[in-house]
Amino acid sequence: MKYYPVHSGYPPYAEVNPAIEAAFAEHGRGGVQMPPKVYVTFIENGDFRTMPAYLPALGIAGVKIVNVHPHNRAKGLPTVMALTVIIDVETGVPEAIINATELTAMRTGAAGAIAAKYLAPRQPVTLGIVGTGRQAEAQVEATAAVLAIEEIRVWSRTEKSAETFAARYSEYNARSVPIERACDCDVLTTTTPSTKPIVIADWVREGTHINAIGADAPGKQELDPAILERAEVFVDDPGQATHSGEVNIPISTGDYDPGRIAGTLGEVVVGKKGRSSPDAITVFDSTGLAIQDLAIAALVLRDGDGGYELPFP
Amino acid sequence: MKYYPVHSGYPPYAEVNPAIEAAFAEHGRGGVQMPPKVYVTFIENGDFRTMPAYLPALGIAGVKIVNVHPHNRAKGLPTVMALTVIIDVETGVPEAIINATELTAMRTGAAGAIAAKYLAPRQPVTLGIVGTGRQAEAQVEATAAVLAIEEIRVWSRTEKSAETFAARYSEYNARSVPIERACDCDVLTTTTPSTKPIVIADWVREGTHINAIGADAPGKQELDPAILERAEVFVDDPGQATHSGEVNIPISTGDYDPGRIAGTLGEVVVGKKGRSSPDAITVFDSTGLAIQDLAIAALVLRDGDGGYELPFP
Repeated sequence: MKYYPVHSGYPPYAEVNPAIEAAFAEHGRGGVQMPPKVYVTFIENGDFRTMPAYLPALGIAGVKIVNVHPHNRAKGLPTVMALTVIIDVETGVPEAIINATELTAMRTGAAGAIAAKYLAPRQPVTLGIVGTGRQAEAQVEATAAVLAIEEIRVWSRTEKSAETFAARYSEYNARSVPIERACDCDVLTTTTPSTKPIVIADWVREGTHINAIGADAPGKQELDPAILERAEVFVDDPGQATHSGEVNIPISTGDYDPGRIAGTLGEVVVGKKGRSSPDAITVFDSTGLAIQDLAIAALVLRDGDGGYELPFP
Repeated sequence: MKYYPVHSGYPPYAEVNPAIEAAFAEHGRGGVQMPPKVYVTFIENGDFRTMPAYLPALGIAGVKIVNVHPHNRAKGLPTVMALTVIIDVETGVPEAIINATELTAMRTGAAGAIAAKYLAPRQPVTLGIVGTGRQAEAQVEATAAVLAIEEIRVWSRTEKSAETFAARYSEYNARSVPIERACDCDVLTTTTPSTKPIVIADWVREGTHINAIGADAPGKQELDPAILERAEVFVDDPGQATHSGEVNIPISTGDYDPGRIAGTLGEVVVGKKGRSSPDAITVFDSTGLAIQDLAIAALVLRDGDGGYELPFP
């Protein structure tokens, strides 16, 4: 058994994106085993999620364990940290333990990039960015590896964060703008921890593709339900999305009928589903799949150096 | 983060039994978070199970990952291997990874011992042992730490295994016997991987307590359903037992009504439930709880030496 700290030498998006795309394709063909992620919630603060899966096409299986502790920043720790345990398919031996904190951010960025690749209305794209944390960076960098980006319109609750973020991506003409202006774009990416809609339907024009990334637990929500009413909503996984994705609150309040979900990203990747017209608003509701974690873990195992040998069994 | 290989220096049953008893008591008081274990089944052979839990009373949370690969013996590997990841309740940081293969056997043995402590009809007891693998040893050793044992009647499919097992426990007057004779006892423990009943109702006398340990996955079964019909059945967890415990097949065939489950072992430990008379046959249907894994992990962390420091985050 080996432990991989993975503090640098991350695989490039040029490799991560196709690996994630292939995992979604397997999901779209029904070729994976992936029970819904399981939540355990702490009394004081935070939760952790357990995400087992098996990808027979890659011969890989395992479990990601990931926490969300909103008060961690005050303690100098990341809010989200993750560990992936890889189980040998033939024998069940735990063959690797991987620090998956950064890999989690990357595989989520890659899912948004793949959704945009298939669902963006045109190229090159204007990107709208709402929220400027670590995940917003991952979305921009992963998307830049698959689509030509003409311009990035950035909004954050604190203008200074938006300006810092825009300066980092000046090569793509990134600028800090009011939120209405950020929503006026081809591909809108929301990555906030909001529990109330912050993107209003009037601000979103026809043809826009929205990557709704922030809502990944019950009670979280970023989009005006009126957007979902007009939109073609693709989810990563129906069970997870209805439980904890962007659609979770509108479904629980009766504002969105889960029967209207247009399909999964996997079905889009394999060509079973897609945007119905250039004018349709499309939404990718991302909750994060365990098969994404296995796909990116496979890249780390392939590169394979820098690990610690540990005695097991 | 520390890795504990735990290849020796196991905590003694004198400490493990009370720790497991306390975990069941918390379960009986409704003071734990423990989603049902999740199964992922491999195409060729074997499965792995993911078991998250949170025991607020101990301030401990984590996930056990455990495989069952029946063909492993031919490869010189244990059939069952396990790893427990402990998550810090305050911050979500993975604080320890523990080799839990031997601990899994021990915490299962301790559950049987606690069940026998509360449900055995008398003391000293005659133990009946059906199946002589690693788990049978754990059951005998854990039980010997809580009950006086007068005699052990041992049966195995291969007589030589029964004789070897009996020789190991000669201090308790252990003898290899026909299966009917093994079932004629005060506390009968079954630990086989059987998928068909091997203990017949006629062989079990009034007052017997049965620890039904072997059935821990859908399709597994050791007891004649006619025994369950006469018995007071206590489960470790109703959700897990109906899915994968001794009662899973009789429930699916309509031979056992899950409404007849008499209670949980946790309820027995806290005094809410118990055997109704000295003549009742009682059954403890054990599937294995994630809180047992946390309780025994807490003992390893308390002793705390011999681990490997690993960089995380």
